[in-house]
Amino acid sequence: MKNIIYLCVFLSLNASAKLEKKVFKLSVYTTVLGETIRDLRVGYETYGVLNKDKSNVILVTHHFSGNSRAIGYWESIIGPGKALDTNKYFIISSDTLVNLGANDPEIVTTGPRTINPTTKKPYGMSFPKVVLEDFVRVQRELLQSLGIKKLYAVAGASSGAAQAVSWAAYYPEDVPRVIAVVPPGLSLPPYVIALLNRWMAPILLNPKKGLVESLKLITQSSVYFDWASPQKDMEAALDERAKMRAKTADAESLLYTARAIQAFNIEDQASKIKAEILFIPAEKDMIFPVELSEDAAKNLCSLGKSAEVVVIKGRGGHLDGLSKVGDVSQEIIQFLERKPGKNHCKTN
Amino acid sequence: MKNIIYLCVFLSLNASAKLEKKVFKLSVYTTVLGETIRDLRVGYETYGVLNKDKSNVILVTHHFSGNSRAIGYWESIIGPGKALDTNKYFIISSDTLVNLGANDPEIVTTGPRTINPTTKKPYGMSFPKVVLEDFVRVQRELLQSLGIKKLYAVAGASSGAAQAVSWAAYYPEDVPRVIAVVPPGLSLPPYVIALLNRWMAPILLNPKKGLVESLKLITQSSVYFDWASPQKDMEAALDERAKMRAKTADAESLLYTARAIQAFNIEDQASKIKAEILFIPAEKDMIFPVELSEDAAKNLCSLGKSAEVVVIKGRGGHLDGLSKVGDVSQEIIQFLERKPGKNHCKTN
Repeated sequence: MKNIIYLCVFLSLNASAKLEKKVFKLSVYTTVLGETIRDLRVGYETYGVLNKDKSNVILVTHHFSGNSRAIGYWESIIGPGKALDTNKYFIISSDTLVNLGANDPEIVTTGPRTINPTTKKPYGMSFPKVVLEDFVRVQRELLQSLGIKKLYAVAGASSGAAQAVSWAAYYPEDVPRVIAVVPPGLSLPPYVIALLNRWMAPILLNPKKGLVESLKLITQSSVYFDWASPQKDMEAALDERAKMRAKTADAESLLYTARAIQAFNIEDQASKIKAEILFIPAEKDMIFPVELSEDAAKNLCSLGKSAEVVVIKGRGGHLDGLSKVGDVSQEIIQFLERKPGKNHCKTN
Repeated sequence: MKNIIYLCVFLSLNASAKLEKKVFKLSVYTTVLGETIRDLRVGYETYGVLNKDKSNVILVTHHFSGNSRAIGYWESIIGPGKALDTNKYFIISSDTLVNLGANDPEIVTTGPRTINPTTKKPYGMSFPKVVLEDFVRVQRELLQSLGIKKLYAVAGASSGAAQAVSWAAYYPEDVPRVIAVVPPGLSLPPYVIALLNRWMAPILLNPKKGLVESLKLITQSSVYFDWASPQKDMEAALDERAKMRAKTADAESLLYTARAIQAFNIEDQASKIKAEILFIPAEKDMIFPVELSEDAAKNLCSLGKSAEVVVIKGRGGHLDGLSKVGDVSQEIIQFLERKPGKNHCKTN
């Protein structure tokens, strides 16, 4: 019997991984800054089975260059028997608005590449400005369309972690648990706001040729020294990766995504958070160093919240939040399975 | 009497700091790669007094955006009674070839902005390619023109440290002591070779407007997170600094300087080194992390050389190699004053 269930999960997972990109549509969406987007569409994927009372939902919010295929970049923790166990939980992840991979046929997003229904041409830079909170609001609309009112947890890496803690700040009743991997803390540090300007600069300096250089700088920022060691020519490796990505990435969407992330700041909402938060920084992360997680956790604990820090060991830098998150599977499982309510504070 | 000496040193230092940029000229210089540069000129400054047997010379080799005014960026260790004591030592520092600050009237350099004697126009990108070893060779020509055959020490920060250890590798008989501050080790790591490409990219993408962005990225790479904390708007601070620097910096010279530094690699010459080397990395350096110094020192010690590591504590990142080097003054003084010969290995 158990084997049959595994087989069914396997088949359904496989089907969803290969084919079932679903599309959420919203006829009118009003942005946080008060502009209107018509005919909004974002893609999403689900893994596992939604239980009857819809109480087993884990939302996965993706990072800068990610998309709704969460099982692609977090395969070490999403699946049957894994930390985000698809035998127990219903995992859902959606493509963000203004998704970087706007030219990828697998990604469904609304942003600068979308045809403006009024002009019948792509919006380009006339697309309304969006902020990180818009990503969260659209995810919430999607969940509500599925009748899901409360989450079991939200989990995300990097700017996905920023979305996850934003969920807890903006919708405290809906979110009992947050898993924030390689996270910025409760706001984007000035250093990283500036770094995002550096990422955008090549495109602004040369709209035609800048995208590849932007993607190279993003990868270079995201790795630690050792990334290059096996392949002595790091430049060639960066170039190859960036050129491959540039095939499906969109320069204007990169600008919109970067600006949305720059707006992340829930410092003033932190007191409203009810969720327990597990911060999982990576040891050698040069974008969001470990101390940002420690500061955020201390801050939350001083407000009487539950916040813990578990560090991913390794020399991969920021990217360890994707490739090595499986190393802290046990800590994630314990966090997901324990009863919330008690104050858990562990901040080194 | 002592006071009078101090006064004299003060006056002579002041005079040199304000006025005495000297110029070294070489009618023909052949580059490491075999090209010819005619009428080469580089500026230099000296502090302190050259003793009779010319045995008290400390050469200071400068960093990427530095110049011969060593007393400007290393004021905490250069001066009477300081670690590089101008009462004892004769300090000399020259502007590099292809110096970034080619449009600064205080800097004398030969590079893309120089008038090509043949065409009567600036060389621009037709200037011969130079490598870091060329910086060292020109310094040696300058010293020989002053009758200085052997140094007491060479000291430099960042790519200046690369020049300092190159001196020890290429001219082992001339260099008994090297002080390598925020240094790359014995070669430029692939990560930093690639990072220098990122620094160059804005200029290559937009020759007219790219310089300011390059300078912003260079500063952003050189500081740690805290640089922005006092001034919440890091972008504005970067912008202000970059625009001021851009007034005297030259985009093409930046490309030449970056490429020269990318060529730094003395791994194969390490066995020839006779100097004792003091590596002084900075705790939060994200360009040349502490472990690069430790690896280089271990490597040298395993070859029977003397190499030690002393870490600058602080949260300034790479720039701590300039602003906080005074914190390790005692270690520098001990290193300079002890008799060489014994094997000193201390690599944590």
